Amino acid sequence: MLLRFTFFFLLLLAAAMQPSVADDGYRLWLKYDRVADASLRAQYQASAQFIVAEGQDVVLRTAAAELQRGLQGLLDQSVPVLNQAEKNSTKRGIILRIDPTANVSAQTNTANVSGKKKTNSASAAKGSPEGFQIATQGGNLVVSGRSGAALLYGVFALLRQLQTRQPLANLALTSSPRIQYRLLNHWDNPNGTVERGYAGSSIWKWQELPERIDPRYEDYARANASIGINGVVLNNVNASARYLTPEYLRKVAAVAGVLRPYGIRVYLSVLWAAPKVIGGLTTSDPLNPQVQQWWAHRTDEIYKTIPDFGGFLVKANSEGEPGPQDYGRNHADGANMLARALGQHDGAVMWRAFVYQAGSGDRFKQAYEEFQPLDGKFAPKVLVQVKNGPIDFQAREPFHPLFGAMPRTPLMLEVQLTQEYLGFATHLVYLGPLIKECLMADTYAKGPGSTVAKVVDGSLENHAVSGIAGVANIGADRNWTGHPVGQANWYAFGRLAWDHTLSPAAIAEEWTRMTLTQEPAAVRSITQVLNESRSIYVRYTTPLGLHHIMGQNLHYGPEPWLTKSARPDWTAIYYHRADSVGLGFDRTAMGSNALALYAPALRQRWGSPATCPPDFLLWFHHLPWGQKLSTGRPLWDELCTRYYTGADSVLWMQRQWAAVQPAVDAELHADVAARLQVQHREALWWRDACVLYFQTFSRRPIPAPFPKPIRSLAEIKEQVAIYQLR
Amino acid sequence: MLLRFTFFFLLLLAAAMQPSVADDGYRLWLKYDRVADASLRAQYQASAQFIVAEGQDVVLRTAAAELQRGLQGLLDQSVPVLNQAEKNSTKRGIILRIDPTANVSAQTNTANVSGKKKTNSASAAKGSPEGFQIATQGGNLVVSGRSGAALLYGVFALLRQLQTRQPLANLALTSSPRIQYRLLNHWDNPNGTVERGYAGSSIWKWQELPERIDPRYEDYARANASIGINGVVLNNVNASARYLTPEYLRKVAAVAGVLRPYGIRVYLSVLWAAPKVIGGLTTSDPLNPQVQQWWAHRTDEIYKTIPDFGGFLVKANSEGEPGPQDYGRNHADGANMLARALGQHDGAVMWRAFVYQAGSGDRFKQAYEEFQPLDGKFAPKVLVQVKNGPIDFQAREPFHPLFGAMPRTPLMLEVQLTQEYLGFATHLVYLGPLIKECLMADTYAKGPGSTVAKVVDGSLENHAVSGIAGVANIGADRNWTGHPVGQANWYAFGRLAWDHTLSPAAIAEEWTRMTLTQEPAAVRSITQVLNESRSIYVRYTTPLGLHHIMGQNLHYGPEPWLTKSARPDWTAIYYHRADSVGLGFDRTAMGSNALALYAPALRQRWGSPATCPPDFLLWFHHLPWGQKLSTGRPLWDELCTRYYTGADSVLWMQRQWAAVQPAVDAELHADVAARLQVQHREALWWRDACVLYFQTFSRRPIPAPFPKPIRSLAEIKEQVAIYQLR
Repeated sequence: MLLRFTFFFLLLLAAAMQPSVADDGYRLWLKYDRVADASLRAQYQASAQFIVAEGQDVVLRTAAAELQRGLQGLLDQSVPVLNQAEKNSTKRGIILRIDPTANVSAQTNTANVSGKKKTNSASAAKGSPEGFQIATQGGNLVVSGRSGAALLYGVFALLRQLQTRQPLANLALTSSPRIQYRLLNHWDNPNGTVERGYAGSSIWKWQELPERIDPRYEDYARANASIGINGVVLNNVNASARYLTPEYLRKVAAVAGVLRPYGIRVYLSVLWAAPKVIGGLTTSDPLNPQVQQWWAHRTDEIYKTIPDFGGFLVKANSEGEPGPQDYGRNHADGANMLARALGQHDGAVMWRAFVYQAGSGDRFKQAYEEFQPLDGKFAPKVLVQVKNGPIDFQAREPFHPLFGAMPRTPLMLEVQLTQEYLGFATHLVYLGPLIKECLMADTYAKGPGSTVAKVVDGSLENHAVSGIAGVANIGADRNWTGHPVGQANWYAFGRLAWDHTLSPAAIAEEWTRMTLTQEPAAVRSITQVLNESRSIYVRYTTPLGLHHIMGQNLHYGPEPWLTKSARPDWTAIYYHRADSVGLGFDRTAMGSNALALYAPALRQRWGSPATCPPDFLLWFHHLPWGQKLSTGRPLWDELCTRYYTGADSVLWMQRQWAAVQPAVDAELHADVAARLQVQHREALWWRDACVLYFQTFSRRPIPAPFPKPIRSLAEIKEQVAIYQLR
Repeated sequence: MLLRFTFFFLLLLAAAMQPSVADDGYRLWLKYDRVADASLRAQYQASAQFIVAEGQDVVLRTAAAELQRGLQGLLDQSVPVLNQAEKNSTKRGIILRIDPTANVSAQTNTANVSGKKKTNSASAAKGSPEGFQIATQGGNLVVSGRSGAALLYGVFALLRQLQTRQPLANLALTSSPRIQYRLLNHWDNPNGTVERGYAGSSIWKWQELPERIDPRYEDYARANASIGINGVVLNNVNASARYLTPEYLRKVAAVAGVLRPYGIRVYLSVLWAAPKVIGGLTTSDPLNPQVQQWWAHRTDEIYKTIPDFGGFLVKANSEGEPGPQDYGRNHADGANMLARALGQHDGAVMWRAFVYQAGSGDRFKQAYEEFQPLDGKFAPKVLVQVKNGPIDFQAREPFHPLFGAMPRTPLMLEVQLTQEYLGFATHLVYLGPLIKECLMADTYAKGPGSTVAKVVDGSLENHAVSGIAGVANIGADRNWTGHPVGQANWYAFGRLAWDHTLSPAAIAEEWTRMTLTQEPAAVRSITQVLNESRSIYVRYTTPLGLHHIMGQNLHYGPEPWLTKSARPDWTAIYYHRADSVGLGFDRTAMGSNALALYAPALRQRWGSPATCPPDFLLWFHHLPWGQKLSTGRPLWDELCTRYYTGADSVLWMQRQWAAVQPAVDAELHADVAARLQVQHREALWWRDACVLYFQTFSRRPIPAPFPKPIRSLAEIKEQVAIYQLR
């Protein structure tokens, strides 16, 4: 009796002493909190009584340590890591085994995420050294693959099973990445600021490096590895030459040393003018032998310091950055020179196609016009990195016309996780559907089904290399991404980069369960909010295909009245073309004819207002205010309806979020709830700004049942201007 | 036996379940970790069995909650907060009592910090409503004062007794602030960057406000209140007009709402041109009635939104900022206009004296020349805010000659806690001695003993108001200040602002015990490192009175060779004046005669190289390389000796720090240890840069026993230049 009482008291005490700190979001989706269901936990515990890690591969050791850490938290059980399985033991455990003969083809078979099983593809990732298999053998779970990295991915997949409360019994899971280079691009500056960063300063503390290694670097590496990211460009594409100096390479090497055990390689953005700026040369002409020699020598130095260096990312002749065109050369001349500098080193050149110049017709077309003719001219180590859409990371864009148009060139997809044009870290916008929409878009390059995904993963043209890049939304804010739901965008990018067949909704659910709650109704509600959020954002900001009407410079809030700027293609009127007749940019043959860059099937569908999907309408057509749309309403009424229902939908998001309050950590819940308040205030701001401004052209009333804005256009212009003040 | 065993096991379990997270520095000096000495803890526990908080004053409630929180942690004991003491109870506790008749004069009597007891002064703070008394009455500790804020300060003082393990028995402690306005100045921009900030982005999340209140704001308020800071300027002196708009005032009010319960008022930096930028006026002339009306109206609006608003900080006609001189008016015209706008509101105008213009002779003199003639012209609500030295927050400066020269004007002292010229967040530099050195400097304005402290606290001239400002070193980095020891600078500023008679060494010890360790030998070592650190920094960067030879723009690292800049007084050669004859800026009557701005006693002492303290020598004299100094060495040899011994002293700091390793949290220890590595690398950088550069003028060898630098001047210039690249 005494014993029982004491034991009970002991349990109480144990419960009381659980650290009761609020969830500040630092742990991301790797919380590893104890599985509450005792029976399920017991099942898991029985299957995980030991870990065997065979061999000394450094990434394998990371995998074993991560598995031990995860099991400690999830199962509340210390699990030993052994070098080999005990003979004749009756215990069941998990064996991590590097198998040089493993050939895991590009497929994913998971119980809970992918809709499709056993999808085979001719992807470049076939037989990827990063693919893993989890199988049940002799009562044990065996995680195998050709490399330590494969095992690390396998371990995270296994932990994900537990984190999402899936059964382990007879688990058989095979997965291999469909894309080879899965990179985050940091637009981080040497002074610690982040261009278009909304989550605090850069996590990279250049001033402290190489001597001080912020413990956060390792948590960053863990998070990336857990979603399959295998490369990181550390610095802004508007690059400083600093990073190519021995002084900074020592710092870069220190970061590389933290990322290496997680299977992650570092890359650098390079300043094209570096040979002049730090090399003492008088030119950066890619055909100049001294310039070539400088890069070759510098590249050798980099590989001496960082043997697994990943390669170069280049923004050239874009937005004022120097480039080979300064010397009458083209992008291929530049990229190929860097590829030659890489020589025998295992690295890549990622050359960005984001180029446009003032006054050259329709900005929509420029990257195509500069790059498409270069197809076939790029060296094997070069990938051309193309943004998802032709303008610049708008809330919704048609896919970039270069996809499908450069069959002889591996094209990387660049998406933006930092919400430059999607409400910074203040608006809840889950980007899974945006990324997926682009990946699933059909280019018709080789007939129906020639999706962007197949262009990017290399399967359409059997390219040997493939890549995808996400512009990071990560900063030094405690919760990494500012908005807690920004974490879901980081997460979804990694998951889709690994396997673009996954559904964004399933990824959202997975993330929600790992990050926020296991309560089924709450998971459903939150997942629904996430899935709708991007469409809602589009509706209250840029419905029907409007684009680029945001606040100048800041890229926040509405400024459709922006008429003058340093360049015409930085104004808003360049894009919306509102006049007394109607609204929208005519990109048909009657207009800029940008539509001609797409395949005939698309030209036909998008070329007629009757068949063009409403979401893309004003991307391609200048339509009269009274034009009846497929929705049954005249353009003006449909426009207003979307602005009003879009803003109202934020109230729906608020209600959904309020309802899950009991199921979510209080601090986290309050954080998101408060941001949803800001979001609604600003959704009304967008709505009123846009309907009042466009009304000056349409001269039509706000349609019933929507109330007139209570403020004037002048008032809202004044309010918006405040955010543009120095 | 079973019971005993179980109890023992229970204890073990309790110990094991103590949250074992590494110390990330977030809790600053308010850790409230349990007092390890069981006997001492029991004594404390016996004295703290209840808290009585009499009344509903909001700051009093804060005080009671803080006391409860502190005791919970320190004593591991839940202490109830009662509205009144229980009758006939035998328990002993702590009573918080607002006593409207309390008259706590400006004095500090503490057992552990102040060398002097019962120091009376005629300070403006006499009978301050913020003064508190802690007395033992009927077995209870009674904390009393005229206001809730007084009690809050008393509670923090009481907790400090426990945190530093002082006895509570018969405690009698009286303390009152010597200076009325004790402010942090944040140089934080609306976009989230911090000018001269080295600890991440701004803690103020303007985008999220007013709806989202970051929980960090309250921790910030607690930290400030714990050291007596009672006001905060939220935005950069290079001010945006945004903050004066209703849109932003709602955000400011939300922050004010968090700070108010901690006795802290918010202030704003204002853009002089605001009437033009956001007011629609065509002028900002302070004598223009429309301008006056605009400010008066705007000020009324502010007080409607924030009833306890503190007032305005102004940087005018300085470094390109607009100001009254744009209209031919002077600083007094501008400041007095704002004072009139404040009208009956309880607020102040803090007008900065940091002004200098290109090509106007010696920059040293300009603030004096512009401001001294205005003495007596300022309205009562105006304080003129003067930097500690005449140039700009250099590692060591003579005190600003305005101190003592404007008897009819309350002068605020502005010191810089962010280490703009002192190694950012990378070098360990404790600023207590720097601040104290200025405060103790004798102006001789009314004879010997007319210290800067007495000018600033108002006692020298019996001013009704007094103030001190510290430019904050706070950012969103997890540990607030980047370098963990930066916290000591925030702490020391608050303590000295409250009572400038405290010794920096005692403050350092106090901070160390509250923040790092209680182990006596470790406390001694760390305190010693802190106390020496600023002198060491001066030695390896700017010994003997050198100044302003740092990297241009960046203000980091050496650049004594800087010859050209946008302005002559932004170069290094303007200040060091090295030539084949010698080194230093002749500010005697033979030179710029800046020395004439000081009292005769100082003119005499500093005017002769023989009597001028070595620390100020090159501030006032251009001396031949071979000139024998009071140290016995020729100038060149002494210069080299200081550079070499200064750099070597960083190794001493490293050794001292290594020795305290067992007594300090591992993560914190590793952090500081790594930064000390950077510091030594960069101390050598400074040393080599300066001795090699000055050697090109002196043409003398590095004196024995010091080794020649192993690198060339060209090499080090190249290395320094890297940090200046975009």
